[in-house]
Amino acid sequence: MAIITAKSVSENVIIVGNLERQRTVNSFLGNLEKVSEFAGYTSYQGEYNNKKVTTVFHGIGIPSISLITDDLISLGARRIIRFGSCNAIREEIEPGSVVIPQGYSYNFGGTFRQYLNDEYSYSLIPDYDLMLNTVNELESLGIKTFKGRVFTSDALFTHSREFIEKMAKDNHMALELEGAGLYLIAGLKNVKALSVHLAYGNLLNNKKMDASEISEKEKLIAKGILNVLTR
Amino acid sequence: MAIITAKSVSENVIIVGNLERQRTVNSFLGNLEKVSEFAGYTSYQGEYNNKKVTTVFHGIGIPSISLITDDLISLGARRIIRFGSCNAIREEIEPGSVVIPQGYSYNFGGTFRQYLNDEYSYSLIPDYDLMLNTVNELESLGIKTFKGRVFTSDALFTHSREFIEKMAKDNHMALELEGAGLYLIAGLKNVKALSVHLAYGNLLNNKKMDASEISEKEKLIAKGILNVLTR
Amino acid sequence: MAIITAKSVSENVIIVGNLERQRTVNSFLGNLEKVSEFAGYTSYQGEYNNKKVTTVFHGIGIPSISLITDDLISLGARRIIRFGSCNAIREEIEPGSVVIPQGYSYNFGGTFRQYLNDEYSYSLIPDYDLMLNTVNELESLGIKTFKGRVFTSDALFTHSREFIEKMAKDNHMALELEGAGLYLIAGLKNVKALSVHLAYGNLLNNKKMDASEISEKEKLIAKGILNVLTR
Amino acid sequence: MAIITAKSVSENVIIVGNLERQRTVNSFLGNLEKVSEFAGYTSYQGEYNNKKVTTVFHGIGIPSISLITDDLISLGARRIIRFGSCNAIREEIEPGSVVIPQGYSYNFGGTFRQYLNDEYSYSLIPDYDLMLNTVNELESLGIKTFKGRVFTSDALFTHSREFIEKMAKDNHMALELEGAGLYLIAGLKNVKALSVHLAYGNLLNNKKMDASEISEKEKLIAKGILNVLTR
Amino acid sequence: MAIITAKSVSENVIIVGNLERQRTVNSFLGNLEKVSEFAGYTSYQGEYNNKKVTTVFHGIGIPSISLITDDLISLGARRIIRFGSCNAIREEIEPGSVVIPQGYSYNFGGTFRQYLNDEYSYSLIPDYDLMLNTVNELESLGIKTFKGRVFTSDALFTHSREFIEKMAKDNHMALELEGAGLYLIAGLKNVKALSVHLAYGNLLNNKKMDASEISEKEKLIAKGILNVLTR
Amino acid sequence: MAIITAKSVSENVIIVGNLERQRTVNSFLGNLEKVSEFAGYTSYQGEYNNKKVTTVFHGIGIPSISLITDDLISLGARRIIRFGSCNAIREEIEPGSVVIPQGYSYNFGGTFRQYLNDEYSYSLIPDYDLMLNTVNELESLGIKTFKGRVFTSDALFTHSREFIEKMAKDNHMALELEGAGLYLIAGLKNVKALSVHLAYGNLLNNKKMDASEISEKEKLIAKGILNVLTR
Repeated sequence: MAIITAKSVSENVIIVGNLERQRTVNSFLGNLEKVSEFAGYTSYQGEYNNKKVTTVFHGIGIPSISLITDDLISLGARRIIRFGSCNAIREEIEPGSVVIPQGYSYNFGGTFRQYLNDEYSYSLIPDYDLMLNTVNELESLGIKTFKGRVFTSDALFTHSREFIEKMAKDNHMALELEGAGLYLIAGLKNVKALSVHLAYGNLLNNKKMDASEISEKEKLIAKGILNVLTR
Repeated sequence: MAIITAKSVSENVIIVGNLERQRTVNSFLGNLEKVSEFAGYTSYQGEYNNKKVTTVFHGIGIPSISLITDDLISLGARRIIRFGSCNAIREEIEPGSVVIPQGYSYNFGGTFRQYLNDEYSYSLIPDYDLMLNTVNELESLGIKTFKGRVFTSDALFTHSREFIEKMAKDNHMALELEGAGLYLIAGLKNVKALSVHLAYGNLLNNKKMDASEISEKEKLIAKGILNVLTR
Repeated sequence: MAIITAKSVSENVIIVGNLERQRTVNSFLGNLEKVSEFAGYTSYQGEYNNKKVTTVFHGIGIPSISLITDDLISLGARRIIRFGSCNAIREEIEPGSVVIPQGYSYNFGGTFRQYLNDEYSYSLIPDYDLMLNTVNELESLGIKTFKGRVFTSDALFTHSREFIEKMAKDNHMALELEGAGLYLIAGLKNVKALSVHLAYGNLLNNKKMDASEISEKEKLIAKGILNVLTR
Repeated sequence: MAIITAKSVSENVIIVGNLERQRTVNSFLGNLEKVSEFAGYTSYQGEYNNKKVTTVFHGIGIPSISLITDDLISLGARRIIRFGSCNAIREEIEPGSVVIPQGYSYNFGGTFRQYLNDEYSYSLIPDYDLMLNTVNELESLGIKTFKGRVFTSDALFTHSREFIEKMAKDNHMALELEGAGLYLIAGLKNVKALSVHLAYGNLLNNKKMDASEISEKEKLIAKGILNVLTR
Repeated sequence: MAIITAKSVSENVIIVGNLERQRTVNSFLGNLEKVSEFAGYTSYQGEYNNKKVTTVFHGIGIPSISLITDDLISLGARRIIRFGSCNAIREEIEPGSVVIPQGYSYNFGGTFRQYLNDEYSYSLIPDYDLMLNTVNELESLGIKTFKGRVFTSDALFTHSREFIEKMAKDNHMALELEGAGLYLIAGLKNVKALSVHLAYGNLLNNKKMDASEISEKEKLIAKGILNVLTR
Repeated sequence: MAIITAKSVSENVIIVGNLERQRTVNSFLGNLEKVSEFAGYTSYQGEYNNKKVTTVFHGIGIPSISLITDDLISLGARRIIRFGSCNAIREEIEPGSVVIPQGYSYNFGGTFRQYLNDEYSYSLIPDYDLMLNTVNELESLGIKTFKGRVFTSDALFTHSREFIEKMAKDNHMALELEGAGLYLIAGLKNVKALSVHLAYGNLLNNKKMDASEISEKEKLIAKGILNVLTR
């Protein structure tokens, strides 16, 4: 394939945009091995609950995650959970909560136009059961979850106060940079997918998690996601 | 308000695009009274499980249902379930099944542009709990449900075979004419909403429900929706 | 067809968005009978000047009126006059005047995109002779007419003062919700069509007609339209 | 102003895209004088029926005619008739007929975006009385007129057979290159305008006028237009 | 062809939007003859350095220059230099300097849509060698050149202070009305092209060249361009 | 900053989308040290010709490279050369040649919309002198260069034969995935930038470089780029 050089990947895949977070997920896997490394995009495979799980770095932005997702599906992925972070833009979402996107809003253009070969607003939604199971699992681990609408931005440095307030007013829970790409490709290819975003901070009140809280929370969430994928 | 002339409506509302279906829902309500009639748009109020429920006709198309939904929210509606029909475009969806839109795809333009005052793809999603409760309730009544992506079309008579196949290939479950408007207004106003579509037919294999099957099924679904809203 | 269940309709059709106004038009027809009733959309047929005339409810919004118009043309309609209302946004248009749209401005998107299967600005104009005859007839009945540009809006509740002033500055005479759909379908199908809007009010100075004035004026206009169609 | 260097122009203006045609119009004017010449755009002023008339070259394309029209209005023009040619795309329009655009369709973009400072489909229509008077005058001179929808193209050399048939199917009477610009600027500035297109040929059947027929017909039309403007 | 009635043109062509400037260029040519005159668009042919050179008027706006360029290429043009003017919007560009567009920004729409038959942002760039040779030649004649990004506007009269500042902030060197059309057609047809703009003024500080400076400078530039084309 | 955690970077920066290529560039630097590592994006700093040079990984896609470029400029970068690969779509470009984009074509949308806060086609061009110096340096090292138009795609897996042929017909030299982002941000921030693409293959004839050829060529190009930046 294009970026992942392994011959195949497992049906269960966790993708991350941060190598540190990939290490956290990997730390729970048995028989871990690096199965692909190309152009900065590294993949590992291991086992959890006697099932195989692949972890893959997805980079920044919709084109990057879309390419990785498409590659993964060609290689055999059938359940893909993205474990990412986000910044909340809703007063009641405390840093440390988890945001589960029932749908992503996005800017028209590029990746969508090329994949849809048409111009309409494509509904970006997760797999229903994967969503329910993950919400229930995380809640059972004591993690507060928020379900709703998230905006995938294409340009972090353009997030003016005005932009943030417009997105909050239109009832988005959070901003992030890749999720729409995952739901697009999984939607078009009919593969189960879900995003799980740990809210590192809240842009309305500037509250933030510190590094040790993040580390702690990410371990807990990683376990939850692995449980859902391999049960 | 603009179309609904009542001073207020109940928090629980069922909207329909078909007066026959409105009569079916009304038939389960106690103390039923007509509370508004204007320009062909008639509203009733009644009781179920000792809770008030309003039923309203929403007409055809996104601008019509959007106007009605906006009107209803101004008048006090807080949980709105649309009970509609649809045509399935997925082989495995038998007529008589229920399609629950986790998200609507739509054409850019008109109503979206005027409400968003901007041009981006706004994620159209239902309330999470209303969706779960309704799916569970309908399944418990023996109704098969399909959860996923639905396309709201603006022009029924342009549905060529080519169009239907494109929409099926992009993994839409069904086509209908109004749902995107409900999720748009409810999303922007932060009010709980859900659509429940009875699949009257399937456009891929031309299977159809007959009138008596429809009547039977609609009574069952109406009861299910009323249970969810008033529990 | 889709909404109108009659086997055919007369060549002359008057469509309205308000059941009260339909009753007014019907009151001038001989041998009146209800010929279709479905989903809230009711059609009548009667006679005037020994010619058959059908009256049909068209609902709210471009998708609704487009569907009805397309249905009507398939069923035999060849001259369609919409009798509607509007709100003027030009200082000199007094409530009680009639606005005759020489052309409609509109938002891009939905219905236009699906019917045109392309994206360009389609000129929405009435039949030349129908327009002249109607203007002359109404003027001869003592009704003041204004001919020019009207904007078909897709979202009544977004009409802020700023929006109204922008539309006035761009030299629109009035705002309303459906006309662009009629001219679109009639234009594409090469059928004669015209809209006649009674200005109920003026949004710049908040002048309004009262109910009895409306009733009186609508009777006069109905007669004028019937004369033009059946002469 | 930008292109027309005269201090002012008369209220009545005839604009043309062809210097030969300008000479034809000028030949009917008394006291003719050149009042502006800049960058290839030449203006003349003369008299007809004891009223002043200015004739101006408008060049090719929407930006060119828009600039000239805007310039003219700033300089005092209040009634502008464009006397142009076109190619018919409707079987029944014989070369030598006159096409009167009740409205122009056009491509989105450039000039429209900059003038409207917004993106919607702006209705491009002529002055009602100027249209009626001109139609009547030309018909009285024995010239056959067609009233309806014309498409202003931005690129003559892209008119493939497929393009022409699409435009014909959407019920356009003719193709030409500037008219939308005149109706746009006159519409926004609230000045009376009209286009009169002599059909030089018909693109469906490749019939064409020859040079002497054109010369003859243009003299007749020029007289008709001058009569309307100065009566 | 459409506008240029000559049977063929020389490989080397200079196009101008101003008849005065055309006279300046022509004044350097030997054996000058008018080879085409139609609809206000006049072409001359002559010799320089024993090579043939054609000069052509291109009118105002992208559709006009595009049509002329397309016509010229069909008639044999292979190296086209546009000699035009512009208004600078960068503080450091003094009137009298030359702006060489490495690329043009433009409004979407019309001409681009019809030629590309698609909607994407087409890169508008000059021929590399023609650009280098011209920059070097002009610098060697003592003319200061600025290389960079220029915006082709479709509507001169909409250039508000706000618009100018936005274009300056986005790092455009100058505004003008046609260049994007030349680079578009030359790009699609794979013919060498370049624009050379003499900055008549600067819109930020309102400095301007006077008529005699313009005349002087244009003679110098004309000579430079002729040297590059015929060397 | 967002991704690069160093306090500052050098004025001269080379960015790459492939860690192997970064190692090649780094191998020429003295006093090399890793200065930032975050989320998979690693930066090094070293010396060449006694000048400081930073090398940074930019990931896949326009949003990724745009974010990195914006970050770099905030940290002090003033001359940025991207050293990347591409696939040629022009018969005469042999694998192993270097493609120098005088301009990038791109899809509308996302990153462009957020940065421009407007919708027009922004000209994406390199710094003139950086381009000339690099072309001359590479040619002097015996590398064949092609200067012209490149398309930045947002979705590698949608490159059907039809798409490739359309892009070739519109006179693009090559396809790649990031360049438009670099020229956008550098253009808006007024910083000197250039892309240098080694053509790994040619999509029209399926010729390809082998791994050892790539390695050899990349060393040569790396040296050339370093010479240009530090001279």
